[in-house]
Amino acid sequence: MKRIKLTIAYDGQKYSGWQIQNNANTIQAEIEKACQNLFSQEIKVIGASRTDTGVHALGQVATFDIDTSIPDKKIAYALNARLPEDIVVQESKEVHNSFQPRYHAIKKTYHYHIINNEFILPQYRAYNHFVSRKLDINKMQEATKLFIGEKDFKSFCSANSSVKTTIRTIYALEVEQKAPFLTIKVTGNGFLYNMVRIIAGTLIDVGLNRLSIQEVDEIIKSKNRAKASPTAPAKGLTLVKIYYGGKDDES
Amino acid sequence: MKRIKLTIAYDGQKYSGWQIQNNANTIQAEIEKACQNLFSQEIKVIGASRTDTGVHALGQVATFDIDTSIPDKKIAYALNARLPEDIVVQESKEVHNSFQPRYHAIKKTYHYHIINNEFILPQYRAYNHFVSRKLDINKMQEATKLFIGEKDFKSFCSANSSVKTTIRTIYALEVEQKAPFLTIKVTGNGFLYNMVRIIAGTLIDVGLNRLSIQEVDEIIKSKNRAKASPTAPAKGLTLVKIYYGGKDDES
Repeated sequence: MKRIKLTIAYDGQKYSGWQIQNNANTIQAEIEKACQNLFSQEIKVIGASRTDTGVHALGQVATFDIDTSIPDKKIAYALNARLPEDIVVQESKEVHNSFQPRYHAIKKTYHYHIINNEFILPQYRAYNHFVSRKLDINKMQEATKLFIGEKDFKSFCSANSSVKTTIRTIYALEVEQKAPFLTIKVTGNGFLYNMVRIIAGTLIDVGLNRLSIQEVDEIIKSKNRAKASPTAPAKGLTLVKIYYGGKDDES
Repeated sequence: MKRIKLTIAYDGQKYSGWQIQNNANTIQAEIEKACQNLFSQEIKVIGASRTDTGVHALGQVATFDIDTSIPDKKIAYALNARLPEDIVVQESKEVHNSFQPRYHAIKKTYHYHIINNEFILPQYRAYNHFVSRKLDINKMQEATKLFIGEKDFKSFCSANSSVKTTIRTIYALEVEQKAPFLTIKVTGNGFLYNMVRIIAGTLIDVGLNRLSIQEVDEIIKSKNRAKASPTAPAKGLTLVKIYYGGKDDES
């Protein structure tokens, strides 16, 4: 048996997220269907990140095991021929049998995209959250510093989540402006449920002068979801890259 | 009567271009419909640029004449409430009664968007032409120099066009890379039918090593549409900005 690692881009608009569910279109279900069609057998695909309904990806990672003579690099082409056009495998390669996409991920990068303009630009509607009031970018950038490091991010975790620990490490958090676009770029060792979107919602409130830097500091320290801002819409979020350790990026 | 100038962004995917035609959805028809609904009278809207089927815009310009007490800046909001979500008025302002959007334009900027990647990125499918073979950007940039200046662009004009003269001036032509994206940015005093898309197609052939710099020079000099490359697909093209002279950008 070979273990194949896929790197996958998708437009999340029409999907109820990554994870297979009854009576819902999901990315995982589409990829399993394409694999089963290609290899004529039942195949279980394991994903690194359970992206939510409407969230997009450029670099989702998933694996499956298969006995096949198709060269590993060619599997991407064969799967793309069987996938809907809003899901595209970017790379397929054989990895060690011990590789686990979820547990071996050492960091992840997400981008949250915003159009900050008086009126929405229709071409960018589907992949950007629209904010019509002028955002104070400098203040948002100032606020990002409070999130860096190992912290308890309980205030930025959806209340209906049950995890062992709400401590995570954020390595980088930046607000990049290329008017009228704004991108919040965040890299961390892992993210709680809705964490990036709650951080984005909070930074937007800072940019709108609804929150001071001092208040953001208090929100973090409160460990109380109710203190932070609303979750920013899914369509602005893209899972950009998942990092693995080891020489060839897969340990 | 006041003359109102609109600056309009649209997603061209679902439209048969700007200009009103029988039995086709067009941008002009949608804007006239919204104006007529707002002002309860027949209104003729005049556009600066007849964008083609599937071409997008960030800065199309159009005018119409109306007797109204609605403040000019507010008309954008009122029209947007009446327009489909893929057409959005970005600005409305009163201009001098002599202002003509088509004849007073002094230059226009178009961007042609390309994804140059082994596999398409589905989120960017609708607004980018996809080229999977690696493009030689330096060679494309070298070729752009040949287009700058006042020249006869007959080789870059769709054969089924009848214009008085095929001489136009290109002020700037650049190929900008932000991998995996490539943008061809062109500014000129006016463009022939399909001119930007034929230039884009020709530059892509340069990038794919199908054409040498010398051959591009010969294509320009030949004044023969058949010598240039195929017209690049409409979905990559965006009308970005139309410039007007005068103090307040409208003479």
